[in-house]
Amino acid sequence: MAVATSDQIFREVMTFDPPEATTPFEVAHRDFVYGRIWSRPELGRRERRLVTLTCVAAADAPQPIIDHVYAALSSGDLSLEEMLEAVLHFAVYCGWPKASHLEGVIRMQHARVQQERGHTPAPWPARDDDTLGINDWRAGIARGAEVFTEVNLVPAPVPDTPYTHAGILGYVFGHLWQRPGLSRRDRRFVTVACVAVCDAPIPLNSHVTSALHSGDISKQEMDELVLHLSAYSGFAKGEALRGAVEDAWARAGSDR
Amino acid sequence: MAVATSDQIFREVMTFDPPEATTPFEVAHRDFVYGRIWSRPELGRRERRLVTLTCVAAADAPQPIIDHVYAALSSGDLSLEEMLEAVLHFAVYCGWPKASHLEGVIRMQHARVQQERGHTPAPWPARDDDTLGINDWRAGIARGAEVFTEVNLVPAPVPDTPYTHAGILGYVFGHLWQRPGLSRRDRRFVTVACVAVCDAPIPLNSHVTSALHSGDISKQEMDELVLHLSAYSGFAKGEALRGAVEDAWARAGSDR
Amino acid sequence: MAVATSDQIFREVMTFDPPEATTPFEVAHRDFVYGRIWSRPELGRRERRLVTLTCVAAADAPQPIIDHVYAALSSGDLSLEEMLEAVLHFAVYCGWPKASHLEGVIRMQHARVQQERGHTPAPWPARDDDTLGINDWRAGIARGAEVFTEVNLVPAPVPDTPYTHAGILGYVFGHLWQRPGLSRRDRRFVTVACVAVCDAPIPLNSHVTSALHSGDISKQEMDELVLHLSAYSGFAKGEALRGAVEDAWARAGSDR
Repeated sequence: MAVATSDQIFREVMTFDPPEATTPFEVAHRDFVYGRIWSRPELGRRERRLVTLTCVAAADAPQPIIDHVYAALSSGDLSLEEMLEAVLHFAVYCGWPKASHLEGVIRMQHARVQQERGHTPAPWPARDDDTLGINDWRAGIARGAEVFTEVNLVPAPVPDTPYTHAGILGYVFGHLWQRPGLSRRDRRFVTVACVAVCDAPIPLNSHVTSALHSGDISKQEMDELVLHLSAYSGFAKGEALRGAVEDAWARAGSDR
Repeated sequence: MAVATSDQIFREVMTFDPPEATTPFEVAHRDFVYGRIWSRPELGRRERRLVTLTCVAAADAPQPIIDHVYAALSSGDLSLEEMLEAVLHFAVYCGWPKASHLEGVIRMQHARVQQERGHTPAPWPARDDDTLGINDWRAGIARGAEVFTEVNLVPAPVPDTPYTHAGILGYVFGHLWQRPGLSRRDRRFVTVACVAVCDAPIPLNSHVTSALHSGDISKQEMDELVLHLSAYSGFAKGEALRGAVEDAWARAGSDR
Repeated sequence: MAVATSDQIFREVMTFDPPEATTPFEVAHRDFVYGRIWSRPELGRRERRLVTLTCVAAADAPQPIIDHVYAALSSGDLSLEEMLEAVLHFAVYCGWPKASHLEGVIRMQHARVQQERGHTPAPWPARDDDTLGINDWRAGIARGAEVFTEVNLVPAPVPDTPYTHAGILGYVFGHLWQRPGLSRRDRRFVTVACVAVCDAPIPLNSHVTSALHSGDISKQEMDELVLHLSAYSGFAKGEALRGAVEDAWARAGSDR
C-alpha cells in the first residue's frame, strides 16, 4: 500500500486543498500534524474530530475553528446533531462563553456546506424540550448520583453545596451525561480533552482514570489522544495529560 | 410568590429578550445558566456580574463579552467607573492583553447604552493621576507590605526579586489593592474568579483562603461562586476551585 | 542620565506614540507595564519581546497581538525569520491553533512595515524543506533522545507511547529544538513563557529547571522574566512561575 503524503492526508481530513506552505510553521503543520498525527490509524478520525474541535474551541483561534467545523461537517464524520450535542458537553467542561462562539461557527459552516452541495438548507434539527425532563429537579439529583457513579466509578459526593447539588448531581450527571445525542464513549473523548486543556490536576486525574478503567477508551487510544492533544493544545498540556494517563494506568494495573 | 421562568430571569439579567433557543446548547444555557444559576438568591447579582465579567473576559468569546458588559452597564448593577476599575484589577490577575480587549468593549457598550437612553454622552470619568502616588516608589513598598498582610493574612514576602519587589509589593499591594474605585470585597470576587480561571494551585489556595478567613466572602457566597464560575469557565475549573474552598474552609475550622 | 518617562519607554518599545491614557487601566498600563517593567535593564529588549509575543498570542487578545508583532518587526529587535521560527516553537508548546492566528498577524504586519518604509515588499523568506530531514524518522528518534538530554539535562523517556515516540523524541527534540532559526537560549525564553502560561506543574518545573541549571538563562534574567510574564499573563500565572523558579534555584544550590 502506498503511504499517503502529508498533502493527501490534509485533503482527506480537511476536505479542502492544503494551502501552500511557506513558513516553518506551515511546513511543520503539514508534515507533523497531518503527516505524522492525523495519519496514524490507532485512533479513529471521528474521535480525533471530537478532540480537535474541543482543542480549537478552547484555543479561541478564529480560523482553525472555522476550518475544523467545516471539515467535520463536510466529511460527514460528525452529523450536525452530534456536533450541536458536543457543543453543549464542551460548554459544561470549558465554559459557556467559548461554546457560544463555537456554536455560531457551526451554524455558519452548516449553511455553507448545504449551499456548496446545492441543497435547499435542511430544516434545523427539531429539539425536544421534554428530553430527560430537565425541570424534574428532585428526581434529577437522585438519578444524577447514580449516573455520577456509573461515569466516574466512585461514589457520588454528598450534595451539600450549590456546586455539588445544583451543578454536579442536578445538572452535569442528572442531565448532561444522560442525553441521547452522543454516546458515553464520545462524551469521554470530549471530556478528557476539556479537562486536559484546563489542566486542573484533580478533574484531569478523575476523568482520565474513569475513561480508562471503564474500558470506554483503550490505553492505546488514550496514548494517541495524548499525542493528538499535544499538537492542538501544545506539549505543555500534553505532558500533564500524559502524566495523568500513566498514573491512572499504573493504578489500573494494581487493581487487577 | 410566583417562580420566575428562565426567560424572565434571562431578561432581568441580560436586560434584553432571550433569543429563540433551538439547539441543545441554547436550551440548556437558558434553563440551566439562567433558570438554575442566576436565579439563586444566595449570591447577589452585583457579585455575579463581577465574576461573570471576569470569566467571559478570560474566555475571549467576543459576543458573550459584549452581552455581559452591556447588561452590567444597562442594568446599573455596576457603574462605568466600577467596571473600569474592575478592568484594571482583572488586568493584574489575568494579564493586560485580555484586559485591553475588555476595556475596548466597555467603551463601545457604554456609548451604546447612553445612545439608547437618548443621553448626550456623559463626559468620560475624570481621572486623578495623583491617586495613591504611583510614583512614590519607596513608600509604596513599605505600605505594600502592610496591605499584603491585610489582604492575604500572612506576612509579606521579602522583596528580593523583581516579582516581589516591583510587582507584588510595589504595585499589586502597594497600589492596586489600595485604589478607592472598588471595595476590598469587590476585589476579592474578581481575584478569586481570576485565580480560579488560571487555576495555578498556589494563588488559588491563597486567595480563596484569605477571602474566606477575612470574612469578606461568606462560605455560602463562596459556594455559590463555585457553581457560578463552573458554568462560565467550565466544571473542570469549578472542581479545582471547589477543592480549594473545601481545603480553606477545613483549615478555618481547625483554627477556630 | 535623565530617567526616561513612561511615555518615552512606551514609544521606544512600541515604536508608535502612546495613546492618551484616560482610564485606570490605561494609566496603570503606561505607568506600570512601560514605566516599571519594560524600563528595567536586567532583561534585554529582545528577550522581553519573545516573552511578550508568547503571552499575547496565548491570551488571544486581537489588538495587543497586532501591536506587539508590529513593534517587534518595526524595531528590528526580531527579524521576520526569527519571528516565524518563534511561531513554530510557540505552536508546539501552546498549540497550533493559536500559532496560526499569530502567523496571520505577522504576515499582515510585515507587509505594513515594508509599506511604511516605502520598500517594495521583500520576497518572502525562502524555506529549505530538507532542513534537519523531518522525514528521516528513525534517525530522528535517536538524535531526539540525545537532544532531549542536552535540553532537559535528564535522560530521555523510553519512546513507548505515541506521545513520547512520535511527539517528544521524534518531533519536539528530534526536529524542533535542532532547527537553526533561533538559538537554544531564545527557545528557552519562548518555552518558559509557554509553560508558565499553561501552568501545568510538571512541564513548568522541568523547563524552568533546565533553563536555569544549563546556565542559558541566568537567575537574574529569570527573575525578570517572572515579573514581565506577571504583567502580560497575570500575577496568578506569575506566582506559579515564581514558585517553580524558587524551587529550581534551591535545587541548583543543593547540587553545587
